[in-house]
Amino acid sequence: MSKPVTIALDAMGGDHGVEVVLPAALDKVNASSQLNLLLVGEPDKLNEKLRSLGAADHPQLEVQPASEVVEMDDSPAQALRNKKDSSMRVAIDTVKCGRASACVSAGNTGALMATARFVLRTLPGIDRPAICTTLPSHRGHTHVLDLGANVDSKAEHLMQFAVMGSELARAVDGKPSPSVALLNVGEEDIKGNEQVREAAALLVETDLNYVGFAEGDDIYLGDADVVVCDGFVGNVALKSSEGVARMIRNFIAEEFKRNLLTRGLGALALPVLKRLGERIDPRRYNGASLLGLGGIVIKSHGSADALAFAHAIDIAVVEVEKDIPNRIRAHLESIFEQRQVV
Amino acid sequence: MSKPVTIALDAMGGDHGVEVVLPAALDKVNASSQLNLLLVGEPDKLNEKLRSLGAADHPQLEVQPASEVVEMDDSPAQALRNKKDSSMRVAIDTVKCGRASACVSAGNTGALMATARFVLRTLPGIDRPAICTTLPSHRGHTHVLDLGANVDSKAEHLMQFAVMGSELARAVDGKPSPSVALLNVGEEDIKGNEQVREAAALLVETDLNYVGFAEGDDIYLGDADVVVCDGFVGNVALKSSEGVARMIRNFIAEEFKRNLLTRGLGALALPVLKRLGERIDPRRYNGASLLGLGGIVIKSHGSADALAFAHAIDIAVVEVEKDIPNRIRAHLESIFEQRQVV
Repeated sequence: MSKPVTIALDAMGGDHGVEVVLPAALDKVNASSQLNLLLVGEPDKLNEKLRSLGAADHPQLEVQPASEVVEMDDSPAQALRNKKDSSMRVAIDTVKCGRASACVSAGNTGALMATARFVLRTLPGIDRPAICTTLPSHRGHTHVLDLGANVDSKAEHLMQFAVMGSELARAVDGKPSPSVALLNVGEEDIKGNEQVREAAALLVETDLNYVGFAEGDDIYLGDADVVVCDGFVGNVALKSSEGVARMIRNFIAEEFKRNLLTRGLGALALPVLKRLGERIDPRRYNGASLLGLGGIVIKSHGSADALAFAHAIDIAVVEVEKDIPNRIRAHLESIFEQRQVV
Repeated sequence: MSKPVTIALDAMGGDHGVEVVLPAALDKVNASSQLNLLLVGEPDKLNEKLRSLGAADHPQLEVQPASEVVEMDDSPAQALRNKKDSSMRVAIDTVKCGRASACVSAGNTGALMATARFVLRTLPGIDRPAICTTLPSHRGHTHVLDLGANVDSKAEHLMQFAVMGSELARAVDGKPSPSVALLNVGEEDIKGNEQVREAAALLVETDLNYVGFAEGDDIYLGDADVVVCDGFVGNVALKSSEGVARMIRNFIAEEFKRNLLTRGLGALALPVLKRLGERIDPRRYNGASLLGLGGIVIKSHGSADALAFAHAIDIAVVEVEKDIPNRIRAHLESIFEQRQVV
């Protein structure tokens, strides 16, 4: 970090709350003197955990009180209307008022999206924010959006997602013109459903590096930097992928635990298996960006551990440094100006 | 097999045509004296390959001439209108006229579905046929449909898919009342898109063992015997899953090839890695059923090798023995009768 950055953390959100958020926070501030973290939540719980971590007076950690907690099964409307002093809401409010430059929450996705949208508003030209994450590929990684913020996306929405994903990839990966593909069921132009075909027609009119259709497996080949899809489709792709990866990890463990001989081999091969485990460790990809908002909000997986939550904080820092919302805003403005000229 | 079964094979279809289909066919007839295979395609090519395999006069293999071949990039309409003597079409015709009880093709999916639908027609009560395959799970396997025959499926279509998948699971797995789930983006009732919510309402009215919504990863947990979805969504789920599995297989190979030591470990661990490879080998799951037609049609992967194609033949045999189309027809009739009574 070249200058100080302040990030707000919803310290009560997710399956583990303070037990995960605070160790992750401490780890991050110890690694960088430029990072300040606002720990948002119930002060008693926070201070107790800070004391137990020996970090009660850490100069880069500050407690920001919030008396309520959004539960994983609260509906977005419930969270928004009835929990105005929740750790999630207060964390987002600190972004709105400029005290923090971004916030990170492991709380429930629907409530986080609804609250962020209500407080931070969408950028001009954005109808619907989208959830974007990076997935590993043979060549590095692929940015995929939307992963579940929207169902029944129209062509225009998919085009907006493409702009958001492209700006994110450009800033984060340093690629001047990231390639963008539309997720479809076949690579031929004739296949696919109506909104995808219409979105393709819109995308060729933009200055994006649109490279055509991709199929589900192309996400992992890494031929495109950004893969765009409706949130229903993206969510199913993401969850299916997680399911397969988990199944294979279990199969590997089962095969090496089959008998004494295979156990011995497993012990010998531990460094290899560990490297493999790291390469497919979902924690290394934890942290999804809520794009299209007037501020930076990162969603951590609800079951994230401290290592995974720390990775989500890293993503927030990068997006602050790269000023992602303003990049998206500027790119959309240029597209709309171009349309008006035509 | 308790009595003789005749299956027609599109011997020219797929990436490898006779080179894969004939070795697979020979393998299967050598394994079962009750199986007869019609090899549909260009007689010269077929007879030459049969001679090279030493199977020119095999009593269970018969050549059925067809002068044309549907190419992988032929559109369904082209294949249907202009290639009436294709190996694919003739294979399906033998099912129609009753000479074969099922056919297997590795040819292009769109053409196969269009031709099968034109020749064999859909069953009464079925608006759209669907593509169904089994995917591995922690507990065994899951039947998933539709995998790409239909986009923009309506609730009524999803209900019909559920009946088809349920009958397949009941017959093939011997479960009296297979559990059926709808693929969705969240397990709560409020989530999802309109057609999924409407389909849920239809399904609770049937006698199916409908167990609610499933997410992408649930396919691989195996909590439901049958997972139903729109073809666009199912195709993306399937392809994404294949992509992740392939990536992890490559990562495993890379990690064990990293240096001399890891190569040595890989050699030692070969039996373990081989077992693992077999458990996640997509060839063991090759063969998708085109359900809802007045006959049995199995689609093999275009790039299938002989082992994989042989597995698709196995699926055809099972569906013949279990009389799948008639089971689906009977179940749908009972549902429609029930609706009329109500």
